[in-house]
Amino acid sequence: MTGDPEPAHREREAVAALADDFLSGLREWLTIPSVGADPAHHADVGRSAEWLASALRADGWPVVEVWDSGPALPAVHARWPSDDPDAPTVLVYGHHDVQPVDPVELWHTPPFEPVLVGEELFARGASDDKGQVAMHLLGVRAHLAATGRTSPAVNLVLFVEGEEESGSPHITRLLDEHRAELASDLIVFTDTPLYERDAPTVCTGQRGQYAADVVFTGGTSDVHSGRAGGGVPNPATALARLVAALHDDAGRVGLPGFYDDVAELSETERASWAELPFDEAAWLSANAGGAQAATGEEGFTTLERVWARPTAEVNGIAGGYTGPGGKTIVPASASVKLSFRLVPDQRPEHVADQLRAFVAAHTPPGVRAEVIERGAGAPPYAVDLTHPANLAVHDALEAALEQPVRFSRTGGSGPAAILHGWLGAPVVYLGVTLPGDRIHAPNERVVVPLLLRGAEAAAHLWRLLPGRLS
Amino acid sequence: MTGDPEPAHREREAVAALADDFLSGLREWLTIPSVGADPAHHADVGRSAEWLASALRADGWPVVEVWDSGPALPAVHARWPSDDPDAPTVLVYGHHDVQPVDPVELWHTPPFEPVLVGEELFARGASDDKGQVAMHLLGVRAHLAATGRTSPAVNLVLFVEGEEESGSPHITRLLDEHRAELASDLIVFTDTPLYERDAPTVCTGQRGQYAADVVFTGGTSDVHSGRAGGGVPNPATALARLVAALHDDAGRVGLPGFYDDVAELSETERASWAELPFDEAAWLSANAGGAQAATGEEGFTTLERVWARPTAEVNGIAGGYTGPGGKTIVPASASVKLSFRLVPDQRPEHVADQLRAFVAAHTPPGVRAEVIERGAGAPPYAVDLTHPANLAVHDALEAALEQPVRFSRTGGSGPAAILHGWLGAPVVYLGVTLPGDRIHAPNERVVVPLLLRGAEAAAHLWRLLPGRLS
Repeated sequence: MTGDPEPAHREREAVAALADDFLSGLREWLTIPSVGADPAHHADVGRSAEWLASALRADGWPVVEVWDSGPALPAVHARWPSDDPDAPTVLVYGHHDVQPVDPVELWHTPPFEPVLVGEELFARGASDDKGQVAMHLLGVRAHLAATGRTSPAVNLVLFVEGEEESGSPHITRLLDEHRAELASDLIVFTDTPLYERDAPTVCTGQRGQYAADVVFTGGTSDVHSGRAGGGVPNPATALARLVAALHDDAGRVGLPGFYDDVAELSETERASWAELPFDEAAWLSANAGGAQAATGEEGFTTLERVWARPTAEVNGIAGGYTGPGGKTIVPASASVKLSFRLVPDQRPEHVADQLRAFVAAHTPPGVRAEVIERGAGAPPYAVDLTHPANLAVHDALEAALEQPVRFSRTGGSGPAAILHGWLGAPVVYLGVTLPGDRIHAPNERVVVPLLLRGAEAAAHLWRLLPGRLS
Repeated sequence: MTGDPEPAHREREAVAALADDFLSGLREWLTIPSVGADPAHHADVGRSAEWLASALRADGWPVVEVWDSGPALPAVHARWPSDDPDAPTVLVYGHHDVQPVDPVELWHTPPFEPVLVGEELFARGASDDKGQVAMHLLGVRAHLAATGRTSPAVNLVLFVEGEEESGSPHITRLLDEHRAELASDLIVFTDTPLYERDAPTVCTGQRGQYAADVVFTGGTSDVHSGRAGGGVPNPATALARLVAALHDDAGRVGLPGFYDDVAELSETERASWAELPFDEAAWLSANAGGAQAATGEEGFTTLERVWARPTAEVNGIAGGYTGPGGKTIVPASASVKLSFRLVPDQRPEHVADQLRAFVAAHTPPGVRAEVIERGAGAPPYAVDLTHPANLAVHDALEAALEQPVRFSRTGGSGPAAILHGWLGAPVVYLGVTLPGDRIHAPNERVVVPLLLRGAEAAAHLWRLLPGRLS
């Protein structure tokens, strides 16, 4: 599928030749505790950006900038134009901020002292996302070394933000300010894992989300359940009835209009997912906190439910007396935190309208309702499997891994759809980390041979893309 | 209706002659902070019991005992047998422990320094229940003085407990230990208010209650709502669906079998209640914490709903993340505190069985359910309006108040049904306090002229009962 095996072979050799240098650089970068969520580490986020900028300059990138004028934590931007005047422009997205390390006592080795054990490199950020950003630097070097070019076959634009683990609060501001520098024909998003090491995949989409609190209030104080119980509405009961109406008995979300914009999954994509190995018990243990059963919307598999179907979830619910023992009251109020995962082509702003109408329709007499948005939400994104760039990623990865590569998605949300929305370019996903990398948890690791294969895949991709996108 | 007006007149004059002495005694008793809920005041509960015992001895009661051998806080027992060998035996129930005084800063005068302002006596316990217990002591003195008897016309048995405000945790133990001393033909329960000063009533019943927590658990930890949301059951959603099923759209409780034992209200009682003045806004303000509307089971008035219909209430609900902002999780567990008010002839133990079956039927796959009882509950109690003792109370109160007296109930629960269950005697209610007395709240008061009318009514009652019960 990759055509001539010779160039791929040369790219592999180039990666192998640069591997030691790559690894020592990555280990150095991983010593910088760029924990964006902790103001005490904001200077470290700056140091991390400067480290990356220096590495890019050392690699020969002609334009390297650290965007540190605030309010966003420092982001790194670099460009390497192609000599080829017809070359497409490709933006590579990643991030260099990392998750906090607590509970730090559960780490077997200090999180910012990288340790290589066999093929695993342990450190915070090794997988998410410094390892994969470094993989791209290596990929470009290998691409140039293997092809003998002095500039890449595509115009490369790098955008490595410093706030992804904080929810990318200023990404739209950066995109707005730097629209010209970031303009591109394609976005390569690098912050997602393979499905499994033995069943590698190209990710093709992420769900969006919308979140809001609903508060139901009866009176101004709790009521004695003997004195008035049965004679006044119970806001907690009313809220439970609203929550119950959020789903029908088939597990479909009950907001009127919720499914109007939902794109049905193609038979091709369903078939690709059906080929993936899936062990329910293992999946529950790894993904679902030890839940006892995989259940959900009727007519869909678990993977379809979590990757391609929208949801309504109660994140938290509270009302009345919740301490030890009892208190026989009718609570004055009750509230619920809801979040919705969205799939193409749903829009958070439509779901917001649907939720407000739903709450109004489910507010009983004597109860006042309030809907409090938790942010504007994030749109969903998915690329068509048959998009030439997606097929190029697939072929590049298959060549690098020397395994059949299928397709997957991820159920979480990320900035891919935001990049797509602001830059107008399609997004493809190139990622080679694993679900078992313990990102966001103690003892994060990355499997180094996979990072090297990922760099090969990136080198393949830069070579393949001009032909595929023409 | 009271027959010869002369005896009633003499009883009124006797009460008037003893009023100053009564009031100075009550004020002294009210200085003792017998807060049963506070271990720091347990010695005061003992002092309060001793005060009452001394007062009874001074009044001439031939048998007076303080039951203070634990674990119950000290209770007072007294007996005054009638010289008449055919006299019925009547147990008078009240309590001498009082509610805590917090928030004490909202009191206009110190809670244990009784202050008389016009006809209102302000102090913790003035209404609930020391005032009404003292009223009985005065009633007996007036009964003897007015009739010229040296012993009452009925065998009087007094039982004044010290733990009512703590939920009477040891009352069944006292009843068991002292079954012989407390044996009686009738129980006069004195711890309920009139409906309104301008619409006085005889209380004829109290609701029972049963309370339990239901806990739903999915996995052992919260789940990322992106990674697994839609693919695993949400225990909070499941719990909301269970709570929603607790009521149908007509406001009826959804536990199968719940209404099987519910005695329908008689047309006489409904008609009596329909004559009571009822202003919804005023009722909501006084009883329902400023709730915006009186709603409930279809086909019943508000008073019927809170006095004679059973309920299912959410007292509190909790699950997942409930702090500021949001957290997009599927919670590992969620719990709800439920309480049920019961009416004749429901039984708490039947409702317990119904709840367990209901929870089992509403536990979805992948969720574990736990039902945790909060005590054994309390049975409901109501006396037939036409019971001769109930009519005697009605007539005694009507003579004392010189107003038409109707019937009412109270929606709360109390030990009346427990006394009935252990002693096998019917219960009637003699109470002359007011809903506006702010019991359990700052600035508790009692309307002294009503207490004096209540003492008259008690004096009338002891005179009337032998003929009515024969």
